[in-house]
Amino acid sequence: MSGIEVSSRFFDPILSKSAAQYEFEAVKALKAIANHSCVGSEWTGWYGWPEREGIALQAEIKAFQESCKVPYDTIVVVGIGGSYLGTKAISDLYLHSFAIALRGAGKATGLAEIVYLGQHLSEAGMLETLDYLDQRQPLVVVVSKSGTTTEPGVAFRVVKTYLEERFGKDETRSRIIAITDEKTGALRQLATAEKYKTFDVPGDVGGRFSVLTAVGLVPLTMSGIDCAALLRGADGLFRSLKDVSATHPVIQYATFRMAAFAAGKRIEILAFNEPKVAALAEWWKQLYGESEGKGGAGLFPASVCYTTDLHSLGQYVQDGARTMIETFLTIKTPMPTVSAPTRRLTVPRSAKGDPDDQLGYLEGRAVHEINEAAMTGTKMAHRDGGVPCLEIVIESLSPAHLGELLAFFEVACGVSGALLGVNPYDQPGVEAYKTNLFELLGKPR
Amino acid sequence: MSGIEVSSRFFDPILSKSAAQYEFEAVKALKAIANHSCVGSEWTGWYGWPEREGIALQAEIKAFQESCKVPYDTIVVVGIGGSYLGTKAISDLYLHSFAIALRGAGKATGLAEIVYLGQHLSEAGMLETLDYLDQRQPLVVVVSKSGTTTEPGVAFRVVKTYLEERFGKDETRSRIIAITDEKTGALRQLATAEKYKTFDVPGDVGGRFSVLTAVGLVPLTMSGIDCAALLRGADGLFRSLKDVSATHPVIQYATFRMAAFAAGKRIEILAFNEPKVAALAEWWKQLYGESEGKGGAGLFPASVCYTTDLHSLGQYVQDGARTMIETFLTIKTPMPTVSAPTRRLTVPRSAKGDPDDQLGYLEGRAVHEINEAAMTGTKMAHRDGGVPCLEIVIESLSPAHLGELLAFFEVACGVSGALLGVNPYDQPGVEAYKTNLFELLGKPR
Repeated sequence: MSGIEVSSRFFDPILSKSAAQYEFEAVKALKAIANHSCVGSEWTGWYGWPEREGIALQAEIKAFQESCKVPYDTIVVVGIGGSYLGTKAISDLYLHSFAIALRGAGKATGLAEIVYLGQHLSEAGMLETLDYLDQRQPLVVVVSKSGTTTEPGVAFRVVKTYLEERFGKDETRSRIIAITDEKTGALRQLATAEKYKTFDVPGDVGGRFSVLTAVGLVPLTMSGIDCAALLRGADGLFRSLKDVSATHPVIQYATFRMAAFAAGKRIEILAFNEPKVAALAEWWKQLYGESEGKGGAGLFPASVCYTTDLHSLGQYVQDGARTMIETFLTIKTPMPTVSAPTRRLTVPRSAKGDPDDQLGYLEGRAVHEINEAAMTGTKMAHRDGGVPCLEIVIESLSPAHLGELLAFFEVACGVSGALLGVNPYDQPGVEAYKTNLFELLGKPR
Repeated sequence: MSGIEVSSRFFDPILSKSAAQYEFEAVKALKAIANHSCVGSEWTGWYGWPEREGIALQAEIKAFQESCKVPYDTIVVVGIGGSYLGTKAISDLYLHSFAIALRGAGKATGLAEIVYLGQHLSEAGMLETLDYLDQRQPLVVVVSKSGTTTEPGVAFRVVKTYLEERFGKDETRSRIIAITDEKTGALRQLATAEKYKTFDVPGDVGGRFSVLTAVGLVPLTMSGIDCAALLRGADGLFRSLKDVSATHPVIQYATFRMAAFAAGKRIEILAFNEPKVAALAEWWKQLYGESEGKGGAGLFPASVCYTTDLHSLGQYVQDGARTMIETFLTIKTPMPTVSAPTRRLTVPRSAKGDPDDQLGYLEGRAVHEINEAAMTGTKMAHRDGGVPCLEIVIESLSPAHLGELLAFFEVACGVSGALLGVNPYDQPGVEAYKTNLFELLGKPR
């Protein structure tokens, strides 16, 4: 069984009923993914990957990391889309919120911090990242299947030039790891010529499903994150699907989403109450948006961090146009503070004679308890305001639980896309801007 | 005249035509805001504020900053919603992307960095911020009209306790500035009792319209940002409205949005190509979402940073459900690199004999030029995909131009809300979760 629960207690009862009608088809769709016979099956290598390849690969990466003699304290991931979103989703959870500021200040956590390049074309963004690298010992992980994508291609040239100027050509080679196609492409050729350490982007896994392949495992393991646990968690989710029934949370989530779309909903908001989850939501947005947003279909994926956004988008969600469902990610155990994992924070008492700030009833209570109550109060309020609210409940975001959650979202996305009648593994629309860009810049054909 | 241009060259021609029919009403609505006779007029103190009060107030804050004897290098803004979003929108543009990491490393820019508390209830988020403050000399700016809002109230107790333990009660008083109601409320009372330096939250300006009042001006001035220029820019926008006609960009933006809503669109995506603009987009989301999302109306505000999100939400925007319009914020002059404002970044040449990464045609060209071409290519692609694309064009995001843009968005929001038939200045839906929260936690009535 999966440790994840999908609850519809704050969902719309009519939509709940309608979701049930998709269960049979959803189970069938799941089986077609599992035996690689679905539409787009050439891209379903992620299904069952931990057991088939991931766990062995992870041991190999770990051995490399342990024998690595390059002195580094900062990893620069060069990649765009699925080449960095999964890594950031995971590492933002385990790195200190101020990791980049605290190194050397007695608060270091053993994890190397990670910064990102190649996912934008901002001049200031790139140059200011180089300013930061000046203070650090960088290790560059460049992730590109082809090696010819514009954004990471430009950024890789910039950072390689930077490394060569700072460390010389020889040392630069040891400070670069390439994750690219097994055999072909410009980056593979360059890596072979320069003798970079390399790992493969699997040929049957698309970018947005690649977090648990070398694409995510290499930078995360080099940072010091427990990827073995991630893979065990994901493996557990795949195992739970072996005799799948309609009550499985994967089927529940996929059918509820389909029912919402069929009823005319066009936005799904992923809600959470921990700022460190923001990058995980960005990963989720790519996974669902790019898999389903085609042929005029799909729920537009948006995310909110509460209670922060209750004072921003909250009014709209409560009372604006009724076009959305809201999916709450409920994490039973709060994220630990990196520098003091067992420390709890309670509301301090006020001084005697202080004016009444109306918070006296909270004195001595755990901040986490208030945060949880706010989430429950929000689900009730939004349901009452006409927003069907789903809950995905998970014990914690420890690596093992997180691995399970990542696999859960991937499988549910495949099923959900199948119900919608699209190929969840292609992204034809991503080419349109590139074609225009190449034309505007005069790229030779 | 305003220096902002609203262009509809990539917009839908039928919607453009339909927008024209709202122009007369929009001009009327603008005049009603300007003479404070509109619905919700008791909250329109922001209109014309720079000339009426802001410029004089700014001089006062600046004088305080110059005479301030407290040694500080970091400002902690304690506030939620409109109490911090405007400050972050502005300061993220002018602070180095790695400001919190680079202080003392020879890259300091003269600006004090700003961190935020009171906008979430995350235990880890608060405790890790205190870890960071341990390394710094903090000055706390607490922003709360009433002083009884839960999130900033709890955070203020936490940070005040922290300061008292570290600096003692006396020095703590000098490290706190309170921005609160002129006369009443718990924070005003506390500030009076403790002799904090205070500034007023104006009684006729709501949170999301308050960025150019003391709410934003105090922390920004204390950080070293040129707020006089911000106010001059905003003042210029208000002056440009004195003899307003339908061609004014404010009227254009408001009527295009209304036409989109009337045609069944339900999402507006604000698109930009500079990561530093992300917080400005969050400010915009609150402004429009909270002003218009009521009574079942309004465009759901979302934002994307390109080219980053072309590899995430791009597929959906290109080819998903056709429910959105897209508003591009085009900044003609790129954001300067904080540490080297005049430095340009060009695509480095590859080494002789390197494999072909298909980027040779870009060698020596400015990264900014490629970033701009990508935006143009995206507008063309999305228009062709059936997304009406608007453009808001501005010369730069220098403080003066930014002040103009902030005022532009505020005025257009007031006009747009009036066209929609809502009161853009209230937020009744924000109370619903609070009521539940208080009940769940057993707050005494």
